[in-house]
Amino acid sequence: MAGHGKAKRGIPPKSDFNSWYPSIVEIADLVDKRYPIKGMDVWKPYGLTAMSLIDGLARHEMSRTGHSEYRFPLLVPEDLLEKENKLVSRLKAARAAGVDPSELRMDEEDSGFKKEVYWVTHGGENELEIPMFLRPTSETPMYSMFSLWVRSHADLPLKTFQIVNTFRYETKQTRSFIRVREIHFFEAHTVHATEDDATEQIHEDAEMVQNILHDLCLPSIVSKRPVWDTFPGAWYTVAADVVMPNGRSLQVATYHHYRDQWAGAFDLSYEDSEGKSRLCHQTTFGMSERLLGAVVGMHGDDQGLIMPPAVAPYQVVLFPVAAHANEEVLPAIEELASSLSDCGFRVKLDLRDVRPGVKHYDWEIKGAPIRLELGPRDLESGNCILSLRTGGKNEVPLDGIAETISDTLDSISDELRTRSSVHIESLIRPFPGIVMQNGKWELSGEIEDGIIYEIAFDGNDSDAEVLEKLTGLAILGDCDRQFTEPRPCVVTGRMTSRRQHLARMY
Amino acid sequence: MAGHGKAKRGIPPKSDFNSWYPSIVEIADLVDKRYPIKGMDVWKPYGLTAMSLIDGLARHEMSRTGHSEYRFPLLVPEDLLEKENKLVSRLKAARAAGVDPSELRMDEEDSGFKKEVYWVTHGGENELEIPMFLRPTSETPMYSMFSLWVRSHADLPLKTFQIVNTFRYETKQTRSFIRVREIHFFEAHTVHATEDDATEQIHEDAEMVQNILHDLCLPSIVSKRPVWDTFPGAWYTVAADVVMPNGRSLQVATYHHYRDQWAGAFDLSYEDSEGKSRLCHQTTFGMSERLLGAVVGMHGDDQGLIMPPAVAPYQVVLFPVAAHANEEVLPAIEELASSLSDCGFRVKLDLRDVRPGVKHYDWEIKGAPIRLELGPRDLESGNCILSLRTGGKNEVPLDGIAETISDTLDSISDELRTRSSVHIESLIRPFPGIVMQNGKWELSGEIEDGIIYEIAFDGNDSDAEVLEKLTGLAILGDCDRQFTEPRPCVVTGRMTSRRQHLARMY
Repeated sequence: MAGHGKAKRGIPPKSDFNSWYPSIVEIADLVDKRYPIKGMDVWKPYGLTAMSLIDGLARHEMSRTGHSEYRFPLLVPEDLLEKENKLVSRLKAARAAGVDPSELRMDEEDSGFKKEVYWVTHGGENELEIPMFLRPTSETPMYSMFSLWVRSHADLPLKTFQIVNTFRYETKQTRSFIRVREIHFFEAHTVHATEDDATEQIHEDAEMVQNILHDLCLPSIVSKRPVWDTFPGAWYTVAADVVMPNGRSLQVATYHHYRDQWAGAFDLSYEDSEGKSRLCHQTTFGMSERLLGAVVGMHGDDQGLIMPPAVAPYQVVLFPVAAHANEEVLPAIEELASSLSDCGFRVKLDLRDVRPGVKHYDWEIKGAPIRLELGPRDLESGNCILSLRTGGKNEVPLDGIAETISDTLDSISDELRTRSSVHIESLIRPFPGIVMQNGKWELSGEIEDGIIYEIAFDGNDSDAEVLEKLTGLAILGDCDRQFTEPRPCVVTGRMTSRRQHLARMY
Repeated sequence: MAGHGKAKRGIPPKSDFNSWYPSIVEIADLVDKRYPIKGMDVWKPYGLTAMSLIDGLARHEMSRTGHSEYRFPLLVPEDLLEKENKLVSRLKAARAAGVDPSELRMDEEDSGFKKEVYWVTHGGENELEIPMFLRPTSETPMYSMFSLWVRSHADLPLKTFQIVNTFRYETKQTRSFIRVREIHFFEAHTVHATEDDATEQIHEDAEMVQNILHDLCLPSIVSKRPVWDTFPGAWYTVAADVVMPNGRSLQVATYHHYRDQWAGAFDLSYEDSEGKSRLCHQTTFGMSERLLGAVVGMHGDDQGLIMPPAVAPYQVVLFPVAAHANEEVLPAIEELASSLSDCGFRVKLDLRDVRPGVKHYDWEIKGAPIRLELGPRDLESGNCILSLRTGGKNEVPLDGIAETISDTLDSISDELRTRSSVHIESLIRPFPGIVMQNGKWELSGEIEDGIIYEIAFDGNDSDAEVLEKLTGLAILGDCDRQFTEPRPCVVTGRMTSRRQHLARMY
């Protein structure tokens, strides 16, 4: 903990978010960015613990919904890619031509994917016969195995997930947790007998995402992505976006309905109860360390992080005050810490030989939800003092302290949810509109930096292109919460209840 | 669970260990070896759960002893290797010349390490300016950061660990868990002010290893490795070897005292209380998925796995018998399962629509320590039937069942410890001895395949070479349990209490 007391001075104001964010991740000791490869940070214990707690939320949801945890190899031989490439190029061509993909031949290669991965070409001093790449996501390695595992309808549904490191050869600017080259990734892959079963899975995915985001106190915009932003090989993609304080949307979860498109490419079929061979229907679900990036960005303030209680490495940090004046203070606070720990709280007893002010300062930076002080006066009165990271100081009785702590943590979570909802709403504004002038579309008003615009939109791809070009923003897609009353589409003028958003995406 | 009932027929007898082992890891559903890269298996849920429970034992020991968990990047730029190479070649040269390493210049390159790693040479279609390799272990990436973190004696000791995937370009025959190319690896790295502090750490490491092996019911031989088998860059290496049923020794843990040798190469120094700069002393500690390989190999039998209770994915598997005859059976067993789970046992309620015989069969293969049956007759008598995977069937009262289960699991662990100790002892024999005949050393008796020989030995390197050449076995090194009475060294004839072992190593 050397040097913590001095750190806070270096925190830029959060209003300067693009300076604040990269500073706070290091000052709060989540990561060290000095590792000599850009976009590959060292996870420090405090950051890794927070991430592991988020992993725990994901594992809980996966287990609750009957997913089993697997672990597939990191390396993928290049020749496995062939099927995937053919599938993707076939679907792309179909979309471009506006035809049914099943009418197309699978003969084109798509090299787009190859540009985004790291390639292992040598083992020792030997050049490998078949180059291998580091998984950017695991469709290819998993589906090659699924086709060995699924034989009959009795094997379905197959619900799998893994939590692993994935890699992307990122050429854009990297940012801790948000855009990195080694990614801590959750991926679920499911196989079903019918399209409807897969659709049911998509609904379950939506629920899992909302449960996790609820624990992280993060409101989100859930949208069905436009066709051009659909995952390669998917029928459709749904995404949850969090709005960061600079008004940029951060995609934190996606789930994809593949129908039987991948199954066709990977010979993934089952025998139904009548003995007929049928293609499987599939879905995938992905989340990553971006969730931690969203937690950092959304809840922190000028003083440092604010960790939501569900994933705070320490929910309660205790320290004694004036322990030298009364020898009962130290044993009392040790007993208190250990009894709170026995109640299941994540507890830290800070006994460093520094002033209480320094401890307040340090744990404010690290965002511990509750700081608890106990001194001679408190022992006499039978109280202790709780300082809430969301603000406020309460003197509360030691009697029933576990329940008080539990209630206080709940109220901190509620407060964070309220703050972030208010915050998001303040960044979403009505769109100024566009008008046709001399045969050209023009904006009817200013587009502000850091604002997300809400629109009614039911236009086609070229209508969307008009909007994206004029605003410099991206369409997030059809929001799951439609307008209650139809409004005119901002481009076509047709009445529609389809609610969409224009945002600058991370 | 499709097809489990049929699987056991395929298990070779355990007496044919070299066929049994590779079969059982797949039949018991620990891994799938059909992934298209040799030595990179797919972890299936049952295997991954067992491994995660072993991870839990390691995390518990690490946390008990004040180690913090980090996570370093997988990729290491080639230029970071330079320091390590110079260190290793300097030490090797020193040993070869029998001189103090500090007298040597650091000018030689050692390319040995480069032959054992996978190389990433391209990001997308771009050749990387500096090639990167996949970590085989993390000295280089970690120590580059440690030298940024350690400034003064107040920063010491620094006790770190990580649980990560590591890679080795393995050219020998691969075996699940035992010799693989993507390795599930635990590594602890510590930094200390003095050589004595580091030596203390080595003692703590020894204790951690024994605690973990105790939970896994695995007896081991602990030896200080001979100089030629010391980890590159280490002052000395201690290893714990488990003896597999085929008489081969399997190294499952190593801990290394580095003194200040690595610190010198990595500029890892601290300012002492008098303001003087001093080199740090370091240790490392390593274990891997080999622990699971040892569990599989040591405890299993002709019927399948036997999982030690501490890491059994399910400690108790419950199933109803003749539930159709009495409608109270199902609710009763559901309540029983849930109450045992609330008591902290890992519980599986097997409600598959197959005969109880099939369930016994399947869970025998997977090695669940206890199978619990409940039927109408049991409900009447207030009893249930426990089948122990180590043998035996007990009718026990439902009243106080949690305590009975707890005691039974303890007795199963004890039974496994006894069996494996007896087993190891049966494979360790006195050495037949060697004699000098016509100026040449010869064996005084037969060397049996699958046997480990105990020797008194205090010879030098060339004496050891004589032994290794004549027997075709390797010397494991100085055992931590010496002979109580000195005996003559098998080569020199000098009296010594140094106990050593000759074994065929995995």
